[in-house]
Amino acid sequence: MAEDDRPDSDQPAGMPPADRAPRDDEFEPRREVLEQMHSAIEAGDVARLNALLEPMHAADIADIIEQLSPPDRRDFLRLYAGEIDGEILSEIDEAIREEVLDQLPREVVAEAVREMDSDDVVDLIEDLDEPEREEILSALDDSDRVAVEQALTYPEYSAGRLMQSEVVTAPEHWTVGEAIDFLRAEEWLPEQFYHVVLVDPRRHPVGYVTLGRLLAARRDAALRDLTEDSFRTISAYAEEGDVAYAFNQYHLISAPVVDRDDRLVGVITIDDAMAVLDEEHEEDILSLAGVGDESSLSDTVMQTVGQRVPWLATNILTALAAAAVIAMFEDSIAKLVALAVLMPIVASMGGNAGTQTLTVAVRGLATRDLGASNALRVVRREVLVGLANGTVFGLIMGGVTFLWFRDPGLSLVIGLAMIINLLVAALAGILVPLGLNRLGADPALASGTFVTMVTDVVGFMAFLGLATLVLL
Amino acid sequence: MAEDDRPDSDQPAGMPPADRAPRDDEFEPRREVLEQMHSAIEAGDVARLNALLEPMHAADIADIIEQLSPPDRRDFLRLYAGEIDGEILSEIDEAIREEVLDQLPREVVAEAVREMDSDDVVDLIEDLDEPEREEILSALDDSDRVAVEQALTYPEYSAGRLMQSEVVTAPEHWTVGEAIDFLRAEEWLPEQFYHVVLVDPRRHPVGYVTLGRLLAARRDAALRDLTEDSFRTISAYAEEGDVAYAFNQYHLISAPVVDRDDRLVGVITIDDAMAVLDEEHEEDILSLAGVGDESSLSDTVMQTVGQRVPWLATNILTALAAAAVIAMFEDSIAKLVALAVLMPIVASMGGNAGTQTLTVAVRGLATRDLGASNALRVVRREVLVGLANGTVFGLIMGGVTFLWFRDPGLSLVIGLAMIINLLVAALAGILVPLGLNRLGADPALASGTFVTMVTDVVGFMAFLGLATLVLL
Repeated sequence: MAEDDRPDSDQPAGMPPADRAPRDDEFEPRREVLEQMHSAIEAGDVARLNALLEPMHAADIADIIEQLSPPDRRDFLRLYAGEIDGEILSEIDEAIREEVLDQLPREVVAEAVREMDSDDVVDLIEDLDEPEREEILSALDDSDRVAVEQALTYPEYSAGRLMQSEVVTAPEHWTVGEAIDFLRAEEWLPEQFYHVVLVDPRRHPVGYVTLGRLLAARRDAALRDLTEDSFRTISAYAEEGDVAYAFNQYHLISAPVVDRDDRLVGVITIDDAMAVLDEEHEEDILSLAGVGDESSLSDTVMQTVGQRVPWLATNILTALAAAAVIAMFEDSIAKLVALAVLMPIVASMGGNAGTQTLTVAVRGLATRDLGASNALRVVRREVLVGLANGTVFGLIMGGVTFLWFRDPGLSLVIGLAMIINLLVAALAGILVPLGLNRLGADPALASGTFVTMVTDVVGFMAFLGLATLVLL
Repeated sequence: MAEDDRPDSDQPAGMPPADRAPRDDEFEPRREVLEQMHSAIEAGDVARLNALLEPMHAADIADIIEQLSPPDRRDFLRLYAGEIDGEILSEIDEAIREEVLDQLPREVVAEAVREMDSDDVVDLIEDLDEPEREEILSALDDSDRVAVEQALTYPEYSAGRLMQSEVVTAPEHWTVGEAIDFLRAEEWLPEQFYHVVLVDPRRHPVGYVTLGRLLAARRDAALRDLTEDSFRTISAYAEEGDVAYAFNQYHLISAPVVDRDDRLVGVITIDDAMAVLDEEHEEDILSLAGVGDESSLSDTVMQTVGQRVPWLATNILTALAAAAVIAMFEDSIAKLVALAVLMPIVASMGGNAGTQTLTVAVRGLATRDLGASNALRVVRREVLVGLANGTVFGLIMGGVTFLWFRDPGLSLVIGLAMIINLLVAALAGILVPLGLNRLGADPALASGTFVTMVTDVVGFMAFLGLATLVLL
């Protein structure tokens, strides 16, 4: 019953009650639950586990399973296997999904999978190896199995993988009354649906009617007179990121998916699009920091090291390139050690300014706010911003340097080097991601290295080079 | 008619057709549109503007208005004012919204606002000054005005600001037939709704029924037998970030909003929650890079400089702190210039490793995957990862240094300094955001400065300090 399901203070990670919303507090109940679970698991107390988890939403149970330590998780899955259903399984993070599937008895997985919508089954098995995949597929009814296998023929990360094949359709010539009678008579309907899709005799979608309109209209109204302007179809081959963008941009709630012949093959609903949007965000933010975009807090130390080493290895190469530049000016530094003191400031400011520009560019590309139509204007803006910031901080550092070292030549040099490096940082920060995007690479992933290398090399070169020319 | 609305290759920024999906291509049509608009604006050709924009979605028109240069935008708004409706206005980015409102004739704004849902009006006027706000409010019908003023009494960024006051409700004792008859008879219904909310006589929401179930059920079925388990109410005082989290976590489509007495005051739908999720992400990614979280590609050079200077100013302070550390070791550097060549490598690797950990922590806090229940485990993992990476790159740099400078002592020093700095980077990367979060500060905003300062200072100190002790 719905009444039992309203969030209250006993419910972990639910909405905080009115007025009291510091974020940490929300976690406290979950910590308690985890501690209680730990002792219940150690004691092998199944009844206690059931009592703890019974009131919880499947998504919260999945989160808790992710947060258990690996040994606790193993014991938990053994004790609680009977209660793991399709809903919990489809909420479990990819990072530990294979481990969980391996540890559950086959019949539990088979039973869980039979309850799931086709899109969730696809999501569950697409990363599995052939034998495990086959085992799960064989648990499905024939029609579900066909739907899942069909979806798997579409490329990874495509709309075809994201859609559910269960769609409510009506012939385009039906009336409201015919549609309602059909819905009442239909044994099987999807868990959630928001539109009735009108199809022509060759199963091409030609429009859709919201359920609200269907309910409000007279029985003798023609469906085709009630269709929505927001109607758009999505190609099964479209990238899932483009799908999420379209949902967010056009406020779609559900959209029919079509194959190459424009025939209806499924439907994508906004909750799946929202999950994709969230994943794309995660990828962007993690890629920018050089953390593997599939990293997860439940990864082990070794997995984490493996994800981070490539970026650090790239970084050490760029740092060595910068060191090589410094080595060219060893004599200058030996003569004037103040150069060694000040040179990291020029490089660091360049790196930060470059990262600012880079992040704005990467975000603009992700949201489609940056494109060919305004790239030139944004480049010009960034260059002017780089010049302005270079001048501001060149003057500041010139002043600080004079106060510190009482050497007007050195002040001049650091001021000029700052202007040059912040200008170059702006150019690199905008041109590198635009170029990578143009080449079809992910600008979030690779830009950071290029940009820092440029700002380090140029920063040291400009400062030490000018110093050598002017001062020595 | 819906048929005219299907995306095809003439439609800018729509879904790309099957198979052909390099991202840049999508922008080409828009660039053409912008060029054509520019000439139509220069020629004052209203008919041409109408022909260009007529087939487009309001969201795309708003994007184009954002991408026009300011003078073109002014002329465009003068020419096209009559066609600017509520839908376009509510899609326009905050960054230029006030400018657009100022340039439109009052009666156009008034007319547009009258068409908008209450949540969109709130979003439009919440940042305006009192006189402008009053002017827009006075254009509304009394009942709409009351709804908007009511919403404005809730805190900024709260569920109360996000909700629309238009809710479809039914007394809890109704049957399906009564609900359908009511919906058919009702003159006014919201544009989009997905549930009928059941309320008790004191207007407390007690459950909801999806429209799909309503349509599929027999007329004599009781609504209360059809309610959904997913039902959750949201406090009008809840933070919008928490609302977006709840929608994503629990796959909500719409959720009733209640006041402090648990009485129904509105409803939030998933499209608004999705927009919030997107904004929160934007804030996180821009804050991490030290770019003002309200920055936009349509900002001017001066606005952009203003947003970026604070972060660069903070950075120059931390860079000066690092320079002060170097200055402590001027004598050592003068004796062994190789120290100046190598020291940025240690600092740079620390900065990068710290940023990796920091980003994972900030993202984990944003998605609630990181909390009191697993903070200790994550801290332990990061420390071990820091030690492991420190050892790996310490050995590598020790080797490279030996090959370069043939000085085993220097190799030992840089190896040890690398281990120390990567360990400290891991600690700072995880403890700083956890601490800021605990204090109620935004970990994305302030962590970067702290962490880089720590890794710079510790990097130079460890390397130069050890070198002074061991080598000189």
